[in-house]
Amino acid sequence: MHFADRLIKAIKQKGAPICVGLDPRLEQIPSSIKEEKIAKKGRSFEAAAEAILDFNKGIIDAVHDLVPAVKPQFAFYIQYGFSGVWAFEETCKYAQEKGLIVIADAKCNDIGSTAEAYAQAFLGEVDLFGEKIAKMDCDAVTVNPYLGYDGIKPFIEICKKHGKGIFVLVKTSNKSSGDLQDRITEDKLRNYEVTAHFLESWGADEIGKSGYSSIGAVVGATFPAEAKKLRQLMPHAYFLVPGFGAQGGTAVDAKACFNKDGLGALINSSRDIIFAPSPRDAVLKMKKDLEKIT
Amino acid sequence: MHFADRLIKAIKQKGAPICVGLDPRLEQIPSSIKEEKIAKKGRSFEAAAEAILDFNKGIIDAVHDLVPAVKPQFAFYIQYGFSGVWAFEETCKYAQEKGLIVIADAKCNDIGSTAEAYAQAFLGEVDLFGEKIAKMDCDAVTVNPYLGYDGIKPFIEICKKHGKGIFVLVKTSNKSSGDLQDRITEDKLRNYEVTAHFLESWGADEIGKSGYSSIGAVVGATFPAEAKKLRQLMPHAYFLVPGFGAQGGTAVDAKACFNKDGLGALINSSRDIIFAPSPRDAVLKMKKDLEKIT
Repeated sequence: MHFADRLIKAIKQKGAPICVGLDPRLEQIPSSIKEEKIAKKGRSFEAAAEAILDFNKGIIDAVHDLVPAVKPQFAFYIQYGFSGVWAFEETCKYAQEKGLIVIADAKCNDIGSTAEAYAQAFLGEVDLFGEKIAKMDCDAVTVNPYLGYDGIKPFIEICKKHGKGIFVLVKTSNKSSGDLQDRITEDKLRNYEVTAHFLESWGADEIGKSGYSSIGAVVGATFPAEAKKLRQLMPHAYFLVPGFGAQGGTAVDAKACFNKDGLGALINSSRDIIFAPSPRDAVLKMKKDLEKIT
Repeated sequence: MHFADRLIKAIKQKGAPICVGLDPRLEQIPSSIKEEKIAKKGRSFEAAAEAILDFNKGIIDAVHDLVPAVKPQFAFYIQYGFSGVWAFEETCKYAQEKGLIVIADAKCNDIGSTAEAYAQAFLGEVDLFGEKIAKMDCDAVTVNPYLGYDGIKPFIEICKKHGKGIFVLVKTSNKSSGDLQDRITEDKLRNYEVTAHFLESWGADEIGKSGYSSIGAVVGATFPAEAKKLRQLMPHAYFLVPGFGAQGGTAVDAKACFNKDGLGALINSSRDIIFAPSPRDAVLKMKKDLEKIT
């Protein structure tokens, strides 16, 4: 099934446009989980990976009936080397088993043939001694646009083939995102608007029955004025919205990311949910906050 | 020791500004290697990872006395999931044991705290139950600048602390790199020139005894006119130069990436070396071609 249609169906089913960011930090994982793993496997990378996986499973168990999607951030797994990537893969599998859409936040990008390898890695099938196998099989991945269309095209082709999606960085939530993204070009557009124009055209052939494209955009909740402009420039793009909560974005700020149909945005929160005393309560509170604005 | 100084020492010792790109494609790895692994471990991801590692070790054995550096491209390993990342790590270790500088080509990037996790992952130390451990411990990593300074700063800090380096994408070698990178800004600079100005200032505090900074730039061999301009804009940045050989860049094209001191550029070649009938001969030929222009 078409990725954006699938995402929207899940958002409507759960009644919440919320994505939970699975950004485990070993230091913040409860000692009870860590001590059990250390007792079995010592202070090893394997023990760390198992602790991360157990922690993630706990979060997924607590919120899977409330939210449509999770977003594991690749950096927090690759830190622990191949063991960490094992935890990443197992987390993705477990979340999908629980009916969740998995967005791999890898912000990957490269030139043509290498971009193809990334697209195969996260979304498609890899050639294993002549047999095609879906390894990671995530539902979507975040992608960086700095290399232009031939770094994006292989992802679009894999999306079309396997019903997957991408979210291209347009205007990121961090303070210095403006260094390049806000620079004004000769034709009076800011660079993030240039990216937006590209993205709307890149995704034009991937629009589903819902009216939304599987080629989405990352637009930070921390820049509501920019988000408002971008919502107009990319009417068919679903927005993945970071920067909510810990980074300072509020529900009112996030409002600009939605279309009039109440759709068009998936708001991510990581630390504020996964390290809350009750992740479930944190999601319910976020849901209430968002209900006021959608 | 300071990364750029270390790189230059290695380039002078080997008498060749050449980096060998380790981009293994399972389909192209000799059957003899693959059959041995399949016989032991079946058509598994583990067998694929071991075949990749054996193939890489063969290349490293063949060229380690001729070149200063290798550049494994992360996409070709992550395709095979955590087993592929194991092969990546073991490849990096083996290359370093053979005295080579390892540049992880991951083109990673993210906002502050997550960029820090990437920097720790590839270059620094990770916190393993309270103990700091260098896991991947590569010598340098490629980084994407789209997120601006706060996506770069954590890498610079790790470089300073551990004598490591980064290469920031400035002008990439692919055909559509111009989509964003060539766009002209209000102040009559192209975006790649804007990135270059940033990079020269980001790296200003990281200049070593050699006069070069550990904050380097990726500049494609396929755009010699742009490279010439960039060489002037970033006098202190070492250039990592992809696009040589299979992508069309020649020694004459690469000349623009060097400073008058004959230094300043490390030319990468991947497919043309690793899949050549004799990788050693391919390196020797490339060395001769480059001697004509430096």
